[in-house]
Amino acid sequence: MRGAGAIVAEDDIWHGGDLATARALFPDAPQPWIDLSTGINPIPYPLPALPLSLWTRLPGADDEAALIAAARAAYRVPDGAGIVAAPGTQILIELLPHLAPAGPVAILGPTYAEHAHAWRKAGFTVMEAASPTEAAATVVVVNPNNPDGRMLSRTELAGLAVRCAARGGLLVVDEAFADFTPETSLVRDLPAGALVLRSFGKTYGLAGLRLGFAIGAADLMARLRASLGPWSVAGPALHVGAQALADRDWLARAGADRSRDAARLDALLAPYGRIVGGTSLFRLLETPTASALFVRLGRHGIYVRRFQSAPDRLRFGLPGDEAAWSRLQAALIDAPETSPPA
Amino acid sequence: MRGAGAIVAEDDIWHGGDLATARALFPDAPQPWIDLSTGINPIPYPLPALPLSLWTRLPGADDEAALIAAARAAYRVPDGAGIVAAPGTQILIELLPHLAPAGPVAILGPTYAEHAHAWRKAGFTVMEAASPTEAAATVVVVNPNNPDGRMLSRTELAGLAVRCAARGGLLVVDEAFADFTPETSLVRDLPAGALVLRSFGKTYGLAGLRLGFAIGAADLMARLRASLGPWSVAGPALHVGAQALADRDWLARAGADRSRDAARLDALLAPYGRIVGGTSLFRLLETPTASALFVRLGRHGIYVRRFQSAPDRLRFGLPGDEAAWSRLQAALIDAPETSPPA
Repeated sequence: MRGAGAIVAEDDIWHGGDLATARALFPDAPQPWIDLSTGINPIPYPLPALPLSLWTRLPGADDEAALIAAARAAYRVPDGAGIVAAPGTQILIELLPHLAPAGPVAILGPTYAEHAHAWRKAGFTVMEAASPTEAAATVVVVNPNNPDGRMLSRTELAGLAVRCAARGGLLVVDEAFADFTPETSLVRDLPAGALVLRSFGKTYGLAGLRLGFAIGAADLMARLRASLGPWSVAGPALHVGAQALADRDWLARAGADRSRDAARLDALLAPYGRIVGGTSLFRLLETPTASALFVRLGRHGIYVRRFQSAPDRLRFGLPGDEAAWSRLQAALIDAPETSPPA
Repeated sequence: MRGAGAIVAEDDIWHGGDLATARALFPDAPQPWIDLSTGINPIPYPLPALPLSLWTRLPGADDEAALIAAARAAYRVPDGAGIVAAPGTQILIELLPHLAPAGPVAILGPTYAEHAHAWRKAGFTVMEAASPTEAAATVVVVNPNNPDGRMLSRTELAGLAVRCAARGGLLVVDEAFADFTPETSLVRDLPAGALVLRSFGKTYGLAGLRLGFAIGAADLMARLRASLGPWSVAGPALHVGAQALADRDWLARAGADRSRDAARLDALLAPYGRIVGGTSLFRLLETPTASALFVRLGRHGIYVRRFQSAPDRLRFGLPGDEAAWSRLQAALIDAPETSPPA
């Protein structure tokens, strides 16, 4: 592990999804790599035909309006609230601190590291807290949380939003993994003082497309939209997003299928540690042998997500086909179990 | 014109390329619309096959590195300089003011209106100047200029960059339309204190793809890259961009072909006013009857670019096929000439 880990600079944020890192760590691994290092649905929404004009023309106002209408319906955005589309949620995470009220920021952690990074870059004092704190103006909650699936209730979040607003702050709820559990979303009864982020690419398995949304108070959303400037979302992303977000049947089927996959993954991983959380797109395994297991899987050409701050945890995305399930199973059998099977 | 103009709010920036506006202005125009309202090459770079993984996976560091390498070679970026890819030049125009030195900003105008808009949004004092002024910390030059093709020499620009740097400022050169005249680009001898913007979509006729670049001092480019966050450019854009920017033959042929088209357009427009400038992707016509000509063309289903601040000017993009040339010619014949033909 030492030699392998050394290629990653200490101050970099580790992300899943970049197989170049996996290849550098395990140059002799069998091909093709199985990438379980993300929470991206391995069965993508079927790409529709893309007329050439989506590529050649500047994205039109009517294309953006069609996407926004589909997103409003899919996420159940209240009429009075605003919604902004962007080329991925990440750029919204980057821009938000430049528009947010002053004051310290509390982030419910551990969680997706780019939130803290973006607020710090913009000059904010950032605290990572295990539970909502009253000391911060702005509170950031990833709900359900990545990587452990921790979930705050809508009642808790609504109360938190009211308290943030009373302090002149903002509650930011990153619902990147909420599509399959819409009943947990804060959007449809959006409290004053709350801003919700939604990601398109994970659920729909199209992370390369770059599409994400912010939903919140109309005036703040107008400022966020203005800070992106015109034509921020590519023509193909507008078109695919509008079509996919309107397809409720696909979403329902995908949700049921991924839930079954998540249960199958839990059963497969059970002998090797304890599943401490996750969503139906990823599962979090805790085991004292996490480092060794990461290396073992890597040598089998299977890339999972490890964590700088939690060396006893690994996050597993879902295999996308039976070949991948088989290779995962074979690689695990080759790994030492944490306790002998009964 | 009055009724037609009224649907556009006075404080909006008019842009070309949005046919929804054209349709609203001229609901009875013959279909399909011919959009000459942009400076986008009407003959796009042929889209290569796009592997599904470009859509499904998060864009990888190696994909971004391949694009950056191709862009460095295509734009002749010096080894010591930095380069950042973004989902379109527009978002770079939006982000730049947040990273730039304090002090007043002078913009050589009239020019692309989003520059002034972005600096003002970020709180800067912005002056529009007809020639480089010494009173500003930061100077913005679109070179060649949109819409009139005005060109400052590399020597002038280099001197300006040095003077900006001496005042603690920055020279921003938007080379959105410089691909066909690489000898005019400031990139290959990039002076200290200069930042150059390059656009992909116009020359390559793929404006819906969203891809643009900033080139400048390595430390400033690192900050600009950080302000975008990871995965800012979509997978398909990384792939198409890398392939197209490496294709020098296509660029040379397209440059020659569009120059011929521009000369043909000048000849066609000559009876109706004076060509006061442009590039090989658009021509600027000055005529006292610009308003009437805009309406006449619109009623023929041909959309050209008009200007809030210059009602006697119209910008014409290039027709993309013989049918479009014929319709333009027919619509013009139907228009009154400014003086009787000889």
